[in-house]
Amino acid sequence: MTAHEAFALELARVAAGVTLPLFRTGAVAEDKGEPGAFDPVTEADRGAEAAMRRLIESTFPDHGVVGEEYGADRPDAEWVWVLDPVDGTRAFVAGLPLWTTLIGLTHQGRPVVGAVAQPYLDEVFLGGPSGARCVARGTDTPIATRACPRLNDAVISTTDPDIFTGAELGAWRQVRATARLARLGCDAYAYAMLASGHIDLVAETALKPWDWTALVALVEAAGGTVTDWLGNTPKDDGRILAVGDDALTEQALLTLRRAVS
Amino acid sequence: MTAHEAFALELARVAAGVTLPLFRTGAVAEDKGEPGAFDPVTEADRGAEAAMRRLIESTFPDHGVVGEEYGADRPDAEWVWVLDPVDGTRAFVAGLPLWTTLIGLTHQGRPVVGAVAQPYLDEVFLGGPSGARCVARGTDTPIATRACPRLNDAVISTTDPDIFTGAELGAWRQVRATARLARLGCDAYAYAMLASGHIDLVAETALKPWDWTALVALVEAAGGTVTDWLGNTPKDDGRILAVGDDALTEQALLTLRRAVS
Repeated sequence: MTAHEAFALELARVAAGVTLPLFRTGAVAEDKGEPGAFDPVTEADRGAEAAMRRLIESTFPDHGVVGEEYGADRPDAEWVWVLDPVDGTRAFVAGLPLWTTLIGLTHQGRPVVGAVAQPYLDEVFLGGPSGARCVARGTDTPIATRACPRLNDAVISTTDPDIFTGAELGAWRQVRATARLARLGCDAYAYAMLASGHIDLVAETALKPWDWTALVALVEAAGGTVTDWLGNTPKDDGRILAVGDDALTEQALLTLRRAVS
Repeated sequence: MTAHEAFALELARVAAGVTLPLFRTGAVAEDKGEPGAFDPVTEADRGAEAAMRRLIESTFPDHGVVGEEYGADRPDAEWVWVLDPVDGTRAFVAGLPLWTTLIGLTHQGRPVVGAVAQPYLDEVFLGGPSGARCVARGTDTPIATRACPRLNDAVISTTDPDIFTGAELGAWRQVRATARLARLGCDAYAYAMLASGHIDLVAETALKPWDWTALVALVEAAGGTVTDWLGNTPKDDGRILAVGDDALTEQALLTLRRAVS
């Protein structure tokens, strides 16, 4: 494991110290959204990002940091940490242990380390120069995407079809109609299952850089491919296609590409 | 805890001994559905139900058993166990730890004990005459639904809107448009979160008796209400409305009722 990979695990541990005590604490339903009301997921988001930023700044003071909650510091640095302290805030609110902490590292703009951490499950899916692994419950196990050359055999996922625009929804429905089965509601955890060889394809839209940086590094380290819906490097439109078997990329793009104006 | 509640926990333990070793084992994508191919979720389903049936028959030989995999034995007995060894087979296949084992007990046809068990999380949500509890990771904690008198404040869930017919989908969309947030993809685990006070409303269709028997007993023991989409006792059409706060029932039925021909 490289020093940067080990540090990503340490960041995940620090974030878990903030998020986990707030998970499944009882915000009453009516409080949410009212000014001044206690909102556990907002507390978790802010507290975990602040804790990770402190550790980065004391350990690698010349590295940049981009986070969902507190913006960009030195975003043009050679090394930049890209953080989403709680991906899947709706899962967090609903008590479902599929929200994750996303930790990415870019080198000269390219994702090189990615961690998807779920503290309630005590799981970190980690990808980087030394490969892809699942560090969970005291174990450290190599992971890899699986072979699945035909879309008809694929297990696919997206978080919520209602996020898609009309053309995107039509494309998703066509991919879904071809695939073997679809599963909804996973957020970034779907990419961890793709990197582990349980899911074959994830298609999403409206993802932010702090979402996909970690996911690109993890999936690529596990043997998969991540592109936008035109087959290019993911960028600001946030349309993501991740596959475990690169043979699926072109089969999915035949449909997805048409949804991109 | 009553003897029947303790026995439901024992059934969950026996089922976990079969299901958990098969979870996240690597069926390659192409094998699925081909005759003779190894299919972990089918093995888990059948093996766990067979193990639970053996234990019921040796412990309570006069009790009936109804299960998803092996049909009905003595379904008119005074006490009948209603089993779904793996609810959420798509979650199981996709490696997601939100599938559950459902164990219900009816007395003279009425659900009286219900368990929703997730062995990878080491969680059993149990409801019965002595109340509702979460037995998890060596702890035994009382659970209850939460107050949420207004649909606008509600966290709601359904497994997959594509299961709905046209009229049902329209009704779901209208409920969703009113609610605070919706979460998809949970299967029976959503009812465990409702019983624990994290989700306020679940609306589904096409549920089987081996799905909803355990869920009715759990949700009612936790303080919630389960009806069909007309406000009556759930029955064979499988349309289920579960709420944590009974004030939500009528607000949701205003819309859902119209989808029932």
